[in-house]
Amino acid sequence: MKLATFSTRDGPKIGVVDLDRNAILDLAAAGLKVDGRSDADFVSMEALIGAGADGLAKAAALAGAWPADCAVPLKSARLMSPFPVPPQMRDCLVFEQHLVNAQKQWEKMTGKPAAGVPEVWYQRPTWYKCNRFSFVGHETDVQWPPYAELMDFECELACVIGRKGANISAADASDYIFGYTIFNDFSARDVQVVERPLGMGPMKGKDFDTGNVLGPWIVTADEIGDPQALWMEARVNGERWGGGISSEMHHSFAEILAFISQSETLYPGELIASGTVPTGCGLELGRFLQPGDVVELEIEKIGVLRNRIVRAES
Amino acid sequence: MKLATFSTRDGPKIGVVDLDRNAILDLAAAGLKVDGRSDADFVSMEALIGAGADGLAKAAALAGAWPADCAVPLKSARLMSPFPVPPQMRDCLVFEQHLVNAQKQWEKMTGKPAAGVPEVWYQRPTWYKCNRFSFVGHETDVQWPPYAELMDFECELACVIGRKGANISAADASDYIFGYTIFNDFSARDVQVVERPLGMGPMKGKDFDTGNVLGPWIVTADEIGDPQALWMEARVNGERWGGGISSEMHHSFAEILAFISQSETLYPGELIASGTVPTGCGLELGRFLQPGDVVELEIEKIGVLRNRIVRAES
Repeated sequence: MKLATFSTRDGPKIGVVDLDRNAILDLAAAGLKVDGRSDADFVSMEALIGAGADGLAKAAALAGAWPADCAVPLKSARLMSPFPVPPQMRDCLVFEQHLVNAQKQWEKMTGKPAAGVPEVWYQRPTWYKCNRFSFVGHETDVQWPPYAELMDFECELACVIGRKGANISAADASDYIFGYTIFNDFSARDVQVVERPLGMGPMKGKDFDTGNVLGPWIVTADEIGDPQALWMEARVNGERWGGGISSEMHHSFAEILAFISQSETLYPGELIASGTVPTGCGLELGRFLQPGDVVELEIEKIGVLRNRIVRAES
Repeated sequence: MKLATFSTRDGPKIGVVDLDRNAILDLAAAGLKVDGRSDADFVSMEALIGAGADGLAKAAALAGAWPADCAVPLKSARLMSPFPVPPQMRDCLVFEQHLVNAQKQWEKMTGKPAAGVPEVWYQRPTWYKCNRFSFVGHETDVQWPPYAELMDFECELACVIGRKGANISAADASDYIFGYTIFNDFSARDVQVVERPLGMGPMKGKDFDTGNVLGPWIVTADEIGDPQALWMEARVNGERWGGGISSEMHHSFAEILAFISQSETLYPGELIASGTVPTGCGLELGRFLQPGDVVELEIEKIGVLRNRIVRAES
C-alpha cells in the first residue's frame, strides 16, 4: 500500500494512493462514509502507524471498497511530507563509494588531503539527526538559503519505524519497519566545507527551512520486499546524473536498527535514512544546482520525488 | 517564575514552584478551581509557552492567589523533564576552555595528538542534536548503557525558545527566549573516542535512554536577568568537581539564536544548550563516574539538578 499525506482546506489528511486510478483515497472521509463515524486512526500518519496491523487492515479494506466521492485526483492533490513534522529522523552514511567520491571532492575544494575512510566506519553505522521542522513534500519548492553558494541534493532511501522497541536484533528488525520512502537531503556544500573541521556533524550545511524532502509517499514494507535490492536514480532537469542500488549499503537497515536501538528505544514514525547512493548527488560529480533546477529522485517500487529549488531575489 | 512538569496518577501536569512554600501549584487544578473551567493553556509546558504573555500572566495570577488544595509538597512531587519529550534540542559547545581541556584528555586516551581548536570554532557556534525521546528529570535514575565503560556528566545551561521566528537578530534574540533550565548531558566517553573519527557528531556516545536530563524546572527569562552571568557548579556525591560562569561562553545565547535562525525557523519549546562549562565534567579532570554515584548540577538563579546513575546487574 502507498500511503500519502496531502494538504486540504481542512488541514493535512492521509490517504491511500492508487496509481491505476491516479487518485488518493481520503481515509478519514472513506472511513466516515463506510462506518458512519470518524476514526481516530486516520487523523495522521503517526496515528495510522500507531494503530498497527489493525490500522493497515482497515485502510486496505477501504482502498479495496474505494467508496465514491472520497478520492482526490493525484494531479490536483498537494502532497506533503508523509510526516509534516516527523517524530525524529536520523540520516546515515553507509554507502562506501559515496564517502570515497565525496572525500575526493572535499580535497579539491579545500586543497587539503582527505583522511580516508576511517576503519570504524566499516564497523558501525554513522548518522546525524535532521531538523524535524524543515520538512516538505513532493513538488514543494525548496528555498535556496541566501547564505549558501553551492547547493546540492542527495538521493536516499529511508525506512519508517512501525513499532516501539529497544535492543532489537538484526534478525527481528524487519518486524519493526513499517515502510520505506524517498529522502532528498538538500545540502549547502560550501557551508559543509566550513563546518567539517568542527566534527559535530552537519549544522547550517543541511539545516534550513524546506531543506529536507520526504515522499512522495510511504510504501508499506510488504510491497517493498527486500529493501537492500532497490534501484535508485537522480535526475536534474530530466537528465540522469547518477544512481545505484541499495544492496551497496555497507550496513543494512536491519543492522542499522540493531545498532541504534542498543539501550535506545525507537518509536513509531521515526525515520532512518541510508545516506546518499553513490553518484546520487552533485558533489561526487563536481556538479552543483542552479536556481530553478528540478531534481527528481526515483527509487524502485516507491516512485519519483520531484522538487524545484528556487532562490529569492535578494 | 519557576515552572515544572510533574508526574501524577493522571499523567504529567505543569505547575508553579514556590520555594518559600516548598510546594508546586498544579496550574490545571488551580485554574479549574478559580475559573470553574479547564484551561487548555495549562495542559503541558508546550501549551503554556504557546499561550505567550497571556499564559504567563494567568499562571502568575494563580500563583499569587495560591488557591487551597491545588498544590503538592515539593518533597513528595515526582519532577519530570520540563518537557517529557522536547520538541527539539540542540546542544552547543561554546566554552573554549572546555574544548581545550577535553582535547588534552582525548590525547591521553587515544595516544594521538589533538587537532587543536579550529579557527572556525571562534567564528560560529557549534552544535549537534539530542535524541528527544531520551529525556528524564530531576532525581530520576539514569541508566548506565551496558555497552559503555567510562561514564560522565556535563554541566550545561539551556535556553527555551518562547516564540516562533527566523532570521532573528542578536539584538532581538532575548524577545524569543522564554526561560532557562539546567541540562545534564550524560556521556559515554569510551564510545565517543571510537565515534569521533567519523565526524558526524555524537551517536551512541550520547544517545541512550535516560541519558538527557533537564530541570529541575524552567525559570522564566525575567527572573534570570543576564544569562551570561550565572555561576555553574558540578558535584559528585557531594564533592565539588568543578564549575565556572556562563560569561565565558564564547558565543552568547543571543548570538547563537541569531546564527542558527538564519533561513531556519525556531519554534516555541525548542531548547538550545551551552555545552559544558569548563571543568563541568569528569573528562576534563580525568575522572569518571561509578555506578551509584549522585551527580548534582547547580546553576545560579535556577537551582540544583540531581541524578543518580545506576548500572543494571548483567
